[in-house]
Order: sequence, then structure tokens, then C-alpha cells
Amino acid sequence: MPSVITNYQKIRSKTEELCQPLEIEDYIPQPAEFVSPPKWHLAHTTWFFEEFILRKYKKDYQVFHPKYSFLFNSYYNHVGKRTLRSNRGILTRPLVCDIYDYRKYVDEHMQDLLNSGEATDEISQLVTIGVNHEQQHQELLITDLKYTLSLNPLYPVYKPDYSLVSDMAAEDLMIPIDAGLYRIGADKSKKFSFDNEHNAHEVYLNDFTISSKLVTNGEYLAFIEAGGYEDFRFWHDEGYTWIRENEIQKPLYWHKMDGSWFQYSLEGLVPLNPDHELGHISFYEATAFAQWKGKRLPTEAEWEVASDKFKWGTRWEWTQSAYLPYPGYEIAEGALGEYNGKFMVNQKVLRGASNATAEGHSRKTYRNFFHPQHQWQLTGIRLAK
Amino acid sequence: MPSVITNYQKIRSKTEELCQPLEIEDYIPQPAEFVSPPKWHLAHTTWFFEEFILRKYKKDYQVFHPKYSFLFNSYYNHVGKRTLRSNRGILTRPLVCDIYDYRKYVDEHMQDLLNSGEATDEISQLVTIGVNHEQQHQELLITDLKYTLSLNPLYPVYKPDYSLVSDMAAEDLMIPIDAGLYRIGADKSKKFSFDNEHNAHEVYLNDFTISSKLVTNGEYLAFIEAGGYEDFRFWHDEGYTWIRENEIQKPLYWHKMDGSWFQYSLEGLVPLNPDHELGHISFYEATAFAQWKGKRLPTEAEWEVASDKFKWGTRWEWTQSAYLPYPGYEIAEGALGEYNGKFMVNQKVLRGASNATAEGHSRKTYRNFFHPQHQWQLTGIRLAK
Amino acid sequence: MPSVITNYQKIRSKTEELCQPLEIEDYIPQPAEFVSPPKWHLAHTTWFFEEFILRKYKKDYQVFHPKYSFLFNSYYNHVGKRTLRSNRGILTRPLVCDIYDYRKYVDEHMQDLLNSGEATDEISQLVTIGVNHEQQHQELLITDLKYTLSLNPLYPVYKPDYSLVSDMAAEDLMIPIDAGLYRIGADKSKKFSFDNEHNAHEVYLNDFTISSKLVTNGEYLAFIEAGGYEDFRFWHDEGYTWIRENEIQKPLYWHKMDGSWFQYSLEGLVPLNPDHELGHISFYEATAFAQWKGKRLPTEAEWEVASDKFKWGTRWEWTQSAYLPYPGYEIAEGALGEYNGKFMVNQKVLRGASNATAEGHSRKTYRNFFHPQHQWQLTGIRLAK
Amino acid sequence: MPSVITNYQKIRSKTEELCQPLEIEDYIPQPAEFVSPPKWHLAHTTWFFEEFILRKYKKDYQVFHPKYSFLFNSYYNHVGKRTLRSNRGILTRPLVCDIYDYRKYVDEHMQDLLNSGEATDEISQLVTIGVNHEQQHQELLITDLKYTLSLNPLYPVYKPDYSLVSDMAAEDLMIPIDAGLYRIGADKSKKFSFDNEHNAHEVYLNDFTISSKLVTNGEYLAFIEAGGYEDFRFWHDEGYTWIRENEIQKPLYWHKMDGSWFQYSLEGLVPLNPDHELGHISFYEATAFAQWKGKRLPTEAEWEVASDKFKWGTRWEWTQSAYLPYPGYEIAEGALGEYNGKFMVNQKVLRGASNATAEGHSRKTYRNFFHPQHQWQLTGIRLAK
Repeated sequence: MPSVITNYQKIRSKTEELCQPLEIEDYIPQPAEFVSPPKWHLAHTTWFFEEFILRKYKKDYQVFHPKYSFLFNSYYNHVGKRTLRSNRGILTRPLVCDIYDYRKYVDEHMQDLLNSGEATDEISQLVTIGVNHEQQHQELLITDLKYTLSLNPLYPVYKPDYSLVSDMAAEDLMIPIDAGLYRIGADKSKKFSFDNEHNAHEVYLNDFTISSKLVTNGEYLAFIEAGGYEDFRFWHDEGYTWIRENEIQKPLYWHKMDGSWFQYSLEGLVPLNPDHELGHISFYEATAFAQWKGKRLPTEAEWEVASDKFKWGTRWEWTQSAYLPYPGYEIAEGALGEYNGKFMVNQKVLRGASNATAEGHSRKTYRNFFHPQHQWQLTGIRLAK
Repeated sequence: MPSVITNYQKIRSKTEELCQPLEIEDYIPQPAEFVSPPKWHLAHTTWFFEEFILRKYKKDYQVFHPKYSFLFNSYYNHVGKRTLRSNRGILTRPLVCDIYDYRKYVDEHMQDLLNSGEATDEISQLVTIGVNHEQQHQELLITDLKYTLSLNPLYPVYKPDYSLVSDMAAEDLMIPIDAGLYRIGADKSKKFSFDNEHNAHEVYLNDFTISSKLVTNGEYLAFIEAGGYEDFRFWHDEGYTWIRENEIQKPLYWHKMDGSWFQYSLEGLVPLNPDHELGHISFYEATAFAQWKGKRLPTEAEWEVASDKFKWGTRWEWTQSAYLPYPGYEIAEGALGEYNGKFMVNQKVLRGASNATAEGHSRKTYRNFFHPQHQWQLTGIRLAK
Repeated sequence: MPSVITNYQKIRSKTEELCQPLEIEDYIPQPAEFVSPPKWHLAHTTWFFEEFILRKYKKDYQVFHPKYSFLFNSYYNHVGKRTLRSNRGILTRPLVCDIYDYRKYVDEHMQDLLNSGEATDEISQLVTIGVNHEQQHQELLITDLKYTLSLNPLYPVYKPDYSLVSDMAAEDLMIPIDAGLYRIGADKSKKFSFDNEHNAHEVYLNDFTISSKLVTNGEYLAFIEAGGYEDFRFWHDEGYTWIRENEIQKPLYWHKMDGSWFQYSLEGLVPLNPDHELGHISFYEATAFAQWKGKRLPTEAEWEVASDKFKWGTRWEWTQSAYLPYPGYEIAEGALGEYNGKFMVNQKVLRGASNATAEGHSRKTYRNFFHPQHQWQLTGIRLAK
Repeated sequence: MPSVITNYQKIRSKTEELCQPLEIEDYIPQPAEFVSPPKWHLAHTTWFFEEFILRKYKKDYQVFHPKYSFLFNSYYNHVGKRTLRSNRGILTRPLVCDIYDYRKYVDEHMQDLLNSGEATDEISQLVTIGVNHEQQHQELLITDLKYTLSLNPLYPVYKPDYSLVSDMAAEDLMIPIDAGLYRIGADKSKKFSFDNEHNAHEVYLNDFTISSKLVTNGEYLAFIEAGGYEDFRFWHDEGYTWIRENEIQKPLYWHKMDGSWFQYSLEGLVPLNPDHELGHISFYEATAFAQWKGKRLPTEAEWEVASDKFKWGTRWEWTQSAYLPYPGYEIAEGALGEYNGKFMVNQKVLRGASNATAEGHSRKTYRNFFHPQHQWQLTGIRLAK
């Protein structure tokens, strides 16, 4: 299975490449429950291959360490007990070098397996899930790291010229889409897609228009300056409570210093560029902004149907849609059935991809999902009406 | 406007009739933030007419008491500051008799207004909203009261023969519905409906089947006895956390005593009848039960499309659907715009009505909504596939 | 035992007399865990006689209601399970009239017992504890009620001319006391005292001076106006955290309205009188005030030794002393052993009595105790150096 | 000032020697608010010299880094704003090597200053406080590290043969002390002592007896096996609530595995030795154990008066005494006034020293203090009667 191996190697190396600028100290802290330390991402993605492939399919495979399954399982109840999610940052051991040894050990065994005659289509499909899973963690590794570094009063630089922003100074057009019956979702018989994209199905849409570009920092600044955070009329009731209880007055990572706006980025603290697309925005803020503009967020079906007509891929775009099963959705048997389905309540769908999304890990049917208050992903806003 | 007046009087009297069995002590406590005391319901529904009609449309109207607007506003930010929701149970004053005087005062002024030449279509529409609002509070008054009394180790009786249950011993059929384009929602130009039912719009549905009857106590008991509360595979991740953190092992109001099951009801503590429809179930539990049965909850569109083919109205039925705006939904200007729209996040739609719903206050397009963990309403389960 | 009976009757009637101005609504709410509703105080003091005397010593005594022991036990683990302290305000039943019937029933049985030949010295001692216990609850009934009514925006009046304040306009003298060995505490062989006053014992005191009068509202206002709540130097670390987290800037019940100071009292809202003694102050605030004045709070031994030289009895006076066992203190056998000893950690001793203390329920050896943050008792400040 | 320099150097090196077995990963996590990471201890003790000595007394001194004062101030409000105590574990930067550079920089400047003609008695006294402060942090560094490592399922070894235990198999004698007037506390004119040990003063003690040895693991195990954690009669009310809410059934670091008892130590997980002295016990547990034994904890005055008659120094011994000012205690001017006085509420005094206390950092008048629930220090029990 040469292409499977090549892809496996490429994606595994990419994860380590992302960690290259890190100091050992950077691998450890977990400043919030929703964030995981780089050490944990490196180990967890490795455990995924050990647990779901090597232990089952590789003859006489010996696990690297008997306690790693307990330490690096994320949330799979099928697999048994695990470290509390909030305790990922207290683990001084295994050392960072132990984790790199673990990766090497698993990679070698995976290559053996894939090169051997034992490799089957079933294994190949699991590898595909595993590398897609690792790509998801590549993005999380970056967004989690940004969150951790951002809390440091020294504003550390991860890497110069690592901006994750794009210029959005073009004119905004509202693209019209006609009412009608459309087909959305992914066909599971075709190339890889996650179970939450199945089944492909028909939806009826009314006429709508959708913006050709993402909302910029400058446009959002106008909302702030117009008192948007103080005016309850634009907010969900829960959103308004959330901004008051958490004293939120601006997007995550924005800082006003001596009258000027700055933004913490992985390049360090930089002046806010009004022409760049907005990022790190919650669903509550996205909705309030849209309301203030006299517009709304698109539904995920609208987004998907219109997506060929605009440029996307620099920000995960909040939709109005709740994260719910598609018609015909079925939870898979066993641990991998826990991948998506059990999170289908109280979360919102985001569409597109971001500047931090792994290459090749995006498609127009992809359904990302987060709770409405989360800001630490590279989230943005596209308006509809 | 004789029919408006008659309806107003009928519904206002009904609220007081519901309070007839109460002692003064029963009017006061608020044991949880989501519950309001009867005194508050009586006053708040009255304040609604005073605030939105009398103050604006009745010439020289003097409010009954200058602080009542602060005390009895529920959540209308437009109207100004208000008592914290969690503080409704600390108000020993105004006395219960003062509240009845307040009702009388407002009713007299409302009748004057409606009998006078000043009454317009606009007023008539506001009265319609006001009486529908009062009907919603009639049901809440009963479910809140049940919650409060249920916490009392003396298991007080509200009223003998007030059971709120029905017999469901009939055979269960799965009614088939064909795929196709259907129209759901309410046409705002026709008779009264809430803004969240607008606009009527097309939806495309796949083939599905839906149960002819509600799940019974006996069926749910089988789920409990099969270990349903211990098996993570049936639960949303948040649902499973919720049952463990709150030590939930059974529907609200069920008690196992010396090996037999009882249920607290407004008639007091009674043996659990396996043939009655289940009630007081959370969305999490409803979903887990459906999962265990190899079925699922219907979407709200499926429910509405099929609703003419089954009997409904004894339990609010959880749907799979999140509470979201319909296409074309617009938030109204002013305080009444806060009625529905600002709650459209993190809540689930319930369809139907319950044994405690006011007469005439149900229709197949009605969208009720609660958070997925709430159990204190008369909620039930209908399965789909 | 005629004197025991007379005293019993007098104190029991006094409790009901205190409730005379109440409406039924006032008997119910519990706005904070440290507060109990009047209904609960009436029942709990009655339960004390039923549980500790009638059930043990009255032949064939039938309890008034089998569940009252569960409902009205305060904290006696020996006696078994009980209503959660925080749930005292949710009990709509038993009705207020039921509680008065309960009091009558127990009083009649107590009188029978005390009139009968069965009454012994042991019973007489228990009655003495019971009436002292009831006197403690008389004061709590008043302070709890004040707390509940104070939260009502209508500022209800409990009773006109019920001020609980005294004039303190006299000159302040610092009374000097010589160093030496002094005896403090109560001799248990003499007249009634609580176990926490035992044993009488020697203490050595250095020279000190103590104020002849309590701190007034006016003096405390000067502390506020001098920025005392903003200057960390005067505060315990925990006290400073407490005022910031709870946004405390003034004594409980003080209100600044249009530039003038008012105080909620059981007479309603009244202008703050600068010559009246300060009340409703926490230990943290008392210490910060003393620190600002360049003085300190007295220890409980200093207070007791000097107490014959100044007027006391209008405010419970915070001392520097922690509530700890005296030398030779022993926890009594059985439930009454839980009366005092188990609270001897993290609390401070208050000495004296207040304007709300029952007549005859004070002596210079009396040790009252509360947590340092509590403000809802009639607490005040006397300085020492 | 050669002796001052020698002592300074010796103690500063000792801190680094304690860190010698650590990996970089060990320097980072903070698993609980009461714990600080090694990196923080290394930096904070250095900041103390920079802030209180070099900035004030060394001509033209340039601080090592402008933000370190914000990062490494512990609780001195006088010095200004600081990192939240709970955020010490999120700082990936400064790197561990930066902190060692910081130490070197400050040490060089300190040596310059002490060698120069500028060094005065005032500076010498501040250096004495600084090295005593650093010795306190040496012990905290060890106890904090133990807490962090103990949470790791891999049970890491800090250093072989680093047991912090002693054999206590000797016979227990109750040493009698006669009643009388005794002098306790430290004379501030003599050699160094902390302000909380001042003034030396007279106390009157009744006759008492005190144990010649500390309670052992074996004795405490008997308490557990006798059901001590289930019997409310032995516990303070707050202690009993604390053990139930936190599900505490044994001392910190004890583990029962397959029927045998083990103890996590800095040597790793080792079998529990019944003859070793008990450690890591809260005040609540210490009191409950004493109560079960029919004894009590000594007061701090009793402990100090009797301390020449028994061996002490392996465990910090809980006393019955609250941490309160001694007669004549005065808070010093400026930031060092925050060292002790502001913590004098809700804490208990511990006397003695432990196997982790720095050499030369103990004396019989020393007053250590912690909250009654804290277990992570090397605390033990000596009984009195």
C-alpha cells in the first residue's frame, strides 16, 4: 500500500514539523479544559494508531507502555478509563523525549504492518481515519498553543512570519442563490468523509443572498465602536449573559493599548490590520454582529450550496445551524462510533476551513462543530440574508 | 369588541381558578431558578397587560404600584431593570391579597379600555398575545407548583383527581410517511400564531415512520431495568455527564420504595401505572431511550407533517430539532421582539401540547422549547425511524 | 416545679409574641443558607422539647407528626437524617397554623410532664437548656427576618418603633486595665451556663486599655470616606478578597440614595443616625476599622475582665479571639454534645449581647460565635489597645 | 560582611541543589492553587532580593527583566499588580534556563553589594529575612513537587533514598507539665525570629501531659479501620462536611492496592511502614484522631513550654491554637508588613519542623500556619491531655 504509507509518513512528519519551534517548556501547560498541551496531542494521535490498528491487527504487537492508553485516550468510553480531561497539564512525565520515542516506535510498527501482507482494506480505511484525525489535531495543536502563549505577559513568538491572516480588502458582494431543491452532504461510497457528513440528502432552500467575503477586523471594530457589546437587542439571551459574566468586550486576543488596537498572534503582538479577516470570534458575537448589520448567518445548507461561488478556507465560518444528525445518520459500532455522534447537542456547525487547517483536509461538505461560546479556534463570519 | 372581552375574562378567571386549591404558603417558595412561585405568575401575567397595553393606550392610566414593574417584569430588557430571576421566592410582600387586588384593578381597566371607543385592532392583537401569554403561564404555574410540592417530604396533594395522565395501552404502530416536499409553519396572515412559527415554508423530507402512540412508563421502566442509565453508548456525551453529575437514575418524580415504583403527582404520591404515558423526561433521556430502542426522535418537520395521523396533546414531545429561526423569521420591534427570538440557541423544540396546556392553546405548528436537561415540564417521547 | 413551668411558659409565649406582626407570607422564605424562616424557628424550638424531653421522659408520648423530626432537626447527627439546611424555605407545608398547633400540643404535654411526679432534676436541666436554646432562636428569628425583609425593594416594616439602636453620643474613654492573672469563664456548679463557658480558668493579661463605648455609625462613615475599603493595608488577606469578590463597600443594610445615607431597619428604611452605634458589621470590617484607627479588637479574656467597667448589651462585640475550647472543656455525651464543640474552628468569639437578645439571656462569660464574614447579626465594634 | 555572604551563598546554592534531579518538564505544572512550580520558587526567591534590596540599595541597579516583578511577586500588594496565583503553571516562558540566568545575575549583584562599602546593618537584616524566606520556599518546593508528582499515574521518583520519614517505634510516654505562669515567644532584640513570634509574653497554663512521640502510620491505620472517617462524633462540623464533599477516607498519598497499603513518596510508591510517623494529615483529621483516642491536640503555648522534653523536628505538628497575633504584635511598615500579619484569620498554628525543613531554620518559638484542611505539608500529630 505505497500511497497509504506515503500519506501516513507525510502527515505524521507534518505534526512534528509544527512542533519544531517549541521549547520543552511549551509542551506542558494546559491553561483551560478545552486546550490540550502539545505533548498530549503528539501522544494522543499516536495512541490512536496503536489502539485502533496495531493492537488489533499487528501480530504479537507489544504496547509501548502499559499506562499510555490510560494517559492518552481522549474520550473513548469503549476503550476504558482515562486521565481527566482537565488534568492533561499536570503530567511532567512521560518526558517530551519519551513521547517522540513513542511516535517513532508506533511509526515503525505501522510501516511494518502496512508493508506486510497483513494490510487489508479495513486497515487502510482505519489509517485514513487516523491520518484525518491527526490532521484535526494539527490544527488544534496550533490553536491550543496560541491560546496558551497568549496568556503569557511576555507575548512569546511561536514563529516569525506565521500570521494565519489574509487580506480581505475587496468589495463585498451579496451573491444571490435561487430557491429550490438541493443535494448536500457526502456520499459515503465515494472518497473519504466523516460519518457526520452522511447521508447525502435533499434540502429545500428559499431564495437567499450570501456575502462574497468574510467580515474584516475593521468592520467588526465599527460594531464595537457603535456600542454593540452594550446593546442587548443584538444578542441571544445566553450570549448577553455570557459577555457580561465574562466581561467580554472584544474578540479574543485583541488588546487596546494607549488608544491603539493590537492582536496577539503566533508572530507575537502585532498592530490590528483592519483589512484582514476577523478571527477568534464566538457564535454569540457572530450573531450579534450580523443582527447589527441587519443580516444573519447562513445555514449550513445555504453555505454548502453557495460555496462554489465564493472563496473560502481562511476561517471556520459559523453557521446558524445546530450540529445535528443528517437524515439516515447512524452511529458506527465500537469506539469509532464515539467520534462524532455523541456530540450532537448544544453545538453549532462551522463550515469551510482555516489558515491553520492541514493541507488536503477540507471539502465543502465538511462539518466542524463547537460550542457557541468558543473563541479559540480560527473562526470568522460570513453574512447572509 | 365583545369576543375579545369574553375571551379575556375567561382566560383571566381560569388562572385564578387554578389557584383555588392553594394555601397562602403555597404562593411563595421558588425552589429552583427555573421555577416561579404562583404569586409571581399571577402578578407577571397582569403586569403584561398593564405594561404593554394600559400604560400605552389607556388615557390617564395610573399604574397600580410604582415598583410592580421592577418586581414582575420577567426578562424584557426593553422595559428596564428587574428583580433577579433567582430572587422571586424571597418576596414576602406584596401579599397574596395585594396581588389579587392588582389583578382586579388591571382587569377593570382593561374592560374599560376594551369597551371604550379607544380600542383598536392594534390593541386587540396585543390582547391576543397577552391572553396567549397568560395561557403559557397557566401551564407553567401547574408544572412549577408540582416541582415545588414534590420536594416536600409530606407529598402534599394539590387537588384530588388531578392526574394529568392518560391510558396508552393501545398497540404501537409505526406510521409510514412518504418522502417529498411539505409545507410547515404558520401563515401569519391567518389566525393567531407566535412569531417563531413564521414563515410557513417548504421542507424536503425523506421517507420515515413515526409511532402512533407515546412511550409508556412500563416501556421506560424496561430501559431502566436493562441498565440504560449505566450504558454510555446510548447517551450524548453531555447527557452522560449530566446524569452522572446529578446522580440521575430515573425520571423526575419517580420513587422506588420497598421495591415498588411510585410517582409524585398533583394528587399526591401514587403507584406508577405502567400503561400511562411517560412524563417529566429530559431530552437526554428521551434520546438515550430512542437509541436503546434502535429508533430516534422525529424532527419537528416530520412531527408536524405526520401529526394528523396520530393522537397528540397529552405530553410535550421532544424532537431532534434545535430551536432555530424559520426562513424569513424576523425579530419584532420593541419589547415583544424579546418574546421568542433571543432564546434560539442551545434549546430543543417540543411539539404537541400536554394535559396541563390551556384549552384552545395548541395547534400543530406550535413550537415549544426547553433546554435539553429540563425535566419539570410534562414532556414525553414519540419514536421515529 | 412551678418556677420552671412559669419560665417555660414565659419564654415560649415570647417567641409567639415576636411573630405577632407577621403575615403568613413572612413565615416562608429563606433567602440565604444562614437564614431560617420564622416557621422553621417556631417548629425547631418546639421539636427540641419533643425530641430531647417528651420522647424520652413522658410515658406513652405520641409525637405530633412522624415526619417533623426529619423536617425540624437543625444539625444533630445523633438524631438522624434531616432536611438540608438550604431547603428550609421550600416547605409550603406544614402550614403556619399547623406549626402553632404543634407548639400548643408540645406545650400542653410539657406542662403535664412538669406538673407530674415524673419531673426530675435531669428534666429540669434539659428544660433550662431548651428555654435558653429558644431564646437564642428568638434573636435569630429577628435577625433572619430582618435579612429577608431587607432584600425586598418595598422595604417592609416589621413593627413601628422597633429600632434596635441606642444613642452613643457620649465621650469615648480608653479604660486602663492592669496586667496580671485573672480568672475567666463560668463555674459549671453555679447557675446555668453553656458548656463552652467551662471551665473557669486563669489567664495572664498584659496591661491594656479598652474603649468605654461602641463605635458609632458616624465614626465608621469616616472610615468609608477616608477610602478604608480600598486600602489593602488595613485588611486581612481573606477579608480583602472577600470585600472585592462580594463588592462590599459598606455595612449590611446601608444605602446611599441621592447623596444621603439610609439604613434598612425593622421600622423600614430610615436615615442613618451618626450617633447610633454601628451594627451589622463583619469581623473583617471590624478589624480593618480598628487597624485604621491605630487600635485593635480586644481578646475575649480582656473583654470579660474589663466588662464591669463599661456599658454593654446593645451589640455583639467582635473579639480578636478564635472560638476554641477552654482548658478542661469536654464534649457532652449524646446529641447535646453537638451543641457547641463541633463548631470550634474558623469562627470568632463575640461578647456581650444585643438589643435583640432575649431578656435574661446575657452574662459576661457568654461566648457567642460566628464566621468572620457574617454581617447579619447585630454585631458591633469596641476598640482596645 | 563575610558571614552574611557565606550564608547567602550556601542557602542560594541549596535551592539549586534541590532542583538538581529535576527534568525541565518538572519545573512547569501547577496542579492546584496552593502549589507553585519549581520554576516559580526559583524565580520568586530571587525576585525577593532584587525587589527589597537591590532596587533600593544598589546604585544604578538595572532589573534583570522589566516584567519579572509582575510575574514573580507572590502576594505583596505594596509592590503592585501580579500574576494571578492560579496562573503560575501556564507560563512556558521565561524558560528554565532564563531563570537560572536570573539567579546568577541577582547573586552577582548581591555579592557586589555585600562586598561593597554600601552594605549596612539594615541591608544585613533584609538579607537575613531573604535567606529565611528562601529556606521556607525550599521546603515548599519539595512539598509542592511531591504533590505534583503524586498525581501522575506513573508515580515518578524524585530521588532514591529521599524518604523524609523516621522510625517512631519507641514507647509512648505522656510527659507531665505543671500548671503555672510561663514565658513564650521570641525576644526581638536577640537573634533572628519572625515578627509573628513577637512579643515574648507570659501565659498561664493548667496542668497537662503531652506525648513523647508522634503518632505513627500504624496508630492512624487503627483509627481508619475502627471506622473513624464514618463517625461524626469525632469531627468538627466543617471537618465532617469536608471529608464527605471531598471523599476523603485516608491521609494524602496513601493508596490501598489489592488489600495492602502503599504511600507515594519522593522515592516513588512504597509500602506503608506502620512504625514511621504519620504525615500529610489535615487539622480536621488530626483533631478527629485525638478525639477518638480520648485525648486532644496541645495548644501552641503548651507545645513550646514542653518542647525541651521531647524530640521534635520530623513533622510540623498541628496545635489546637488559631494563628493570632501575640500581645504587642505590630505590623511592620511597607511591603514586609504583609509577610505574616494579614494571614491571621482562619488558620491554625503548627509547631516544630519537618524532615524537609532547611537546616538551621527551626526553633521552638517558630510559628508555622496553614488552613485546617491542608494536607500537602509534612504535618503530623502529637497528642496532649
